[in-house]
Amino acid sequence: MPSKLSQEIAPFFVMDVLERAKEIEARGNSVIHFEVGEPDLPTPKIICDEAIESLRGGDTKYTPSLGIPELREAISEDYRRNYGVDISSTRVVITMGSSPALFLTMASLLDPGDEVIITDPHYACYPQIINIAGGVTKRVRIYEEEGFQIDINRIKKAISTNTKAILINSPSNPTGAVLEPQIMTEISDLGLYVISDEIYHGLVYEGKARTIYEFSDKAFMINGFSKLYSMTGWRLGYFIAPEDFIRPIQKLQQNLFISPNPFVQRAGITALNSAKTKVKEMVQIFGKRRMRMIEGLRELGFEIYSEPKGAFYVFVNAKRFGDNSYDLAFNILEKAQVAVTPGIDFGYGGEGYLRFSYATSMESIDEGIKRLKAYISNKGGI
Amino acid sequence: MPSKLSQEIAPFFVMDVLERAKEIEARGNSVIHFEVGEPDLPTPKIICDEAIESLRGGDTKYTPSLGIPELREAISEDYRRNYGVDISSTRVVITMGSSPALFLTMASLLDPGDEVIITDPHYACYPQIINIAGGVTKRVRIYEEEGFQIDINRIKKAISTNTKAILINSPSNPTGAVLEPQIMTEISDLGLYVISDEIYHGLVYEGKARTIYEFSDKAFMINGFSKLYSMTGWRLGYFIAPEDFIRPIQKLQQNLFISPNPFVQRAGITALNSAKTKVKEMVQIFGKRRMRMIEGLRELGFEIYSEPKGAFYVFVNAKRFGDNSYDLAFNILEKAQVAVTPGIDFGYGGEGYLRFSYATSMESIDEGIKRLKAYISNKGGI
Repeated sequence: MPSKLSQEIAPFFVMDVLERAKEIEARGNSVIHFEVGEPDLPTPKIICDEAIESLRGGDTKYTPSLGIPELREAISEDYRRNYGVDISSTRVVITMGSSPALFLTMASLLDPGDEVIITDPHYACYPQIINIAGGVTKRVRIYEEEGFQIDINRIKKAISTNTKAILINSPSNPTGAVLEPQIMTEISDLGLYVISDEIYHGLVYEGKARTIYEFSDKAFMINGFSKLYSMTGWRLGYFIAPEDFIRPIQKLQQNLFISPNPFVQRAGITALNSAKTKVKEMVQIFGKRRMRMIEGLRELGFEIYSEPKGAFYVFVNAKRFGDNSYDLAFNILEKAQVAVTPGIDFGYGGEGYLRFSYATSMESIDEGIKRLKAYISNKGGI
Repeated sequence: MPSKLSQEIAPFFVMDVLERAKEIEARGNSVIHFEVGEPDLPTPKIICDEAIESLRGGDTKYTPSLGIPELREAISEDYRRNYGVDISSTRVVITMGSSPALFLTMASLLDPGDEVIITDPHYACYPQIINIAGGVTKRVRIYEEEGFQIDINRIKKAISTNTKAILINSPSNPTGAVLEPQIMTEISDLGLYVISDEIYHGLVYEGKARTIYEFSDKAFMINGFSKLYSMTGWRLGYFIAPEDFIRPIQKLQQNLFISPNPFVQRAGITALNSAKTKVKEMVQIFGKRRMRMIEGLRELGFEIYSEPKGAFYVFVNAKRFGDNSYDLAFNILEKAQVAVTPGIDFGYGGEGYLRFSYATSMESIDEGIKRLKAYISNKGGI
């Protein structure tokens, strides 16, 4: 019989939506995809070319377990350039995506029963990753009316003697919120380890996201190439840890993963050093789509208290349609042929909400909004 | 402070050997490498070409979490062709190397405290992977004098009410032994789950390795492309599990890894379907090196009770030089400039042994044996 832990993992409800969407498409009907969490844009050619060259050069063997030194240095330099922080490349660990980076963070940090505070709503996988590493998740609500920012007093109330860390995610999936610097200071001042998931850094359309290392050094920082460089399938991530964690992390990595892929790492070096212009173009494209999506959702009657400033999601309150976001997502899919992610996937604090991703073309956004307009008017408005 | 678990993981002693070898090389001296666990031969060009074509075609997005259906089917077909077993492709899970496959196996199978029986000596990472997944390792000694086969009576004595599975590895790292079919039957008859690490399948020079599915269906089978196809750096592995484990495994994979790399998976399809001739050539090369290494070690006075029939290792008793294999490996490195893996890396049952890998050129094998001959004669023979 499968382990209790593996049986009890909550499924992603959006996968059911996706599966049903594929059935509808298989019958020859078009579906607009607002549920996807990956950029539609191709990986920039210069990055692919580097991987190809590396493959041609026979770069197909194990690398050092923590990653190729040049890539670790390029990441250290990237953080210096972007945020003015001085992080030694010896603290950078290359991983096969940011998910394994999160797991290695948790496994190197948590003893059985240690608690990690996360927000609710939150990225769907956090509680499972914490759980698999033997930790316990404590959720602290964040609210639309507060711009999905974190209220430090609610955090303080959640802290117990078992609390080891607080996990933040700015810009956030699913809310798109960028944490205010004042709040990052307050969180750092708690004296707990801060785990900062910065995977959506760079995808910010107003202001700028700040790295945790501007505020605290007692911190883990998770990042990767999937979102900003449109490299989801490549499975290339990284994280930065306090110096005394590096050796334990290296042993975990050697045993669980051996080393990351060499030609994918080479491509990562090129991404950091030579793809900035291309990335800027992509961010501009997302920026325009964001405006269109926000505008469209407002036209539909959704209230957006504070506009999401980063990532590529708009998280809207759809409670006037009913409290069950799963049923609602299915209803919208069946009636309007628009796929969206039910808020329940992001925790109970997300129930009654829907996540709209604008990682899709402007034409699709227009068409999706049009379909939703008809859907809502058939229902007699919001 | 790092978690207890991560701090307590045993280091790989061979890494110290390797580091010291690099220092010696940096001073301009040559080192013969008999310590490496990866094929020196390049990945066959046809496999690299497929990855390149896939990259050019924009195949850089997430795939289904369990892997691309064509690859899962090709693996199912490969097992049918090679062993006559009928395994549905729905039971095949693609992973980023066989190490994550092992971890997912353990995480999907073990509740806290569940025991897994392994041999001693064993592949270095097994106890750690079991431990990280919350399980407990029970070691059962195997002996050179018995051809490193498994004695079923010793296994039976090790079984407790907490025993969930027995993990076997044939051909074996570090011993090169191929399990006799009779023993695989006896193990299957115990009624426990059998986890069969078949990563060295195909690299067999006398007789043939059998898959666990010829004996039992209550089994997990771990495999990958690293060894047989010379694709270590690619990070492409897979495993097969009982049908009722697939959904729990899928949830683990989604949360921990999202999905494996698309263009690497494409290359895997080509490896299975179109690289057989090339693989045969490589196996013949390893076969010749194996004979030379065994012959050379015998010339040096090492006794090899039963010749290793698979993988690319010879595991020899070096106790006449002393009981501490770590010190011995260092002494050999300093005096003879030959790097070998100390047996202690493979458990206490490996102490006093050395592992010689013949995943290196015939010239290197000759030169290494020559150096060792001088080393031993300076010591006054074995």
